[in-house]
Amino acid sequence: MNSSDNLIGKWISVLYRYRKSYASKMLEPYGIVGCQYLFLMTLFKQDGASQEKISDNLKIDKTTTAKAIKKLEDNGYVKRVVDSADKRAYKVFLTQKAQDIMPKIYETMKNWESMVLSDVSEEEYLALEKLLNKMAEKAYGIGNL
Amino acid sequence: MNSSDNLIGKWISVLYRYRKSYASKMLEPYGIVGCQYLFLMTLFKQDGASQEKISDNLKIDKTTTAKAIKKLEDNGYVKRVVDSADKRAYKVFLTQKAQDIMPKIYETMKNWESMVLSDVSEEEYLALEKLLNKMAEKAYGIGNL
Repeated sequence: MNSSDNLIGKWISVLYRYRKSYASKMLEPYGIVGCQYLFLMTLFKQDGASQEKISDNLKIDKTTTAKAIKKLEDNGYVKRVVDSADKRAYKVFLTQKAQDIMPKIYETMKNWESMVLSDVSEEEYLALEKLLNKMAEKAYGIGNL
Repeated sequence: MNSSDNLIGKWISVLYRYRKSYASKMLEPYGIVGCQYLFLMTLFKQDGASQEKISDNLKIDKTTTAKAIKKLEDNGYVKRVVDSADKRAYKVFLTQKAQDIMPKIYETMKNWESMVLSDVSEEEYLALEKLLNKMAEKAYGIGNL
């Protein structure tokens, strides 16, 4: 399969940025900006994960991850604890303040998804999910070449 | 249409970051890092665009755009010229150095797309294109609410 215009990649970029921009706008009143919601959502599923694991899970480089976690810590959304098994590593935990805001974050992302998918039928949705999954698996393989 | 798990959004994020990370790795030898290839590809289509237009086209905020353009200018890939119609604005042009590297950038992005779509049939590709287009149009509407 070939695409001379990089259409899929371009749309993925555009959708990614629209989503990020919507999340920023809706969550800014809570002091959650840029990609910070991604870190909180990841921690909500894996509370106590190491910075390295978060970085790997999100495919966001270590420096950007470290900066985002630091900012979230400064704003009282996470706390970092030195890993007893590896003194150089940190485990990151959500604070109560973050736990309290999680429903708002999930609601925001669900609203965006519902709006964006409002003209997409159940059948199309399932096909899309399958295709994106297939592509993500391939992309994962390339990333580890 | 509803999705309880934000699966589509998550995959879009993951695919976006895998693509960016692949581009970074392949183009780093040329001094093109992070999202810089996006700016160069945009300028290749609209040489002489204003920073504001580039920012709007890519849905990347003005500060990030200004920083990226500055970095590209420092590396000799673009030159900025004060807009004669609006002295506060810059028009951005690709240099010969950038023109020379464009085929490599397009080849890189095309390779990624070919690899990621290698298990996707022509029919599935067309369906995917249609769905992503539909979603991007909706997302555009939400972005301008």
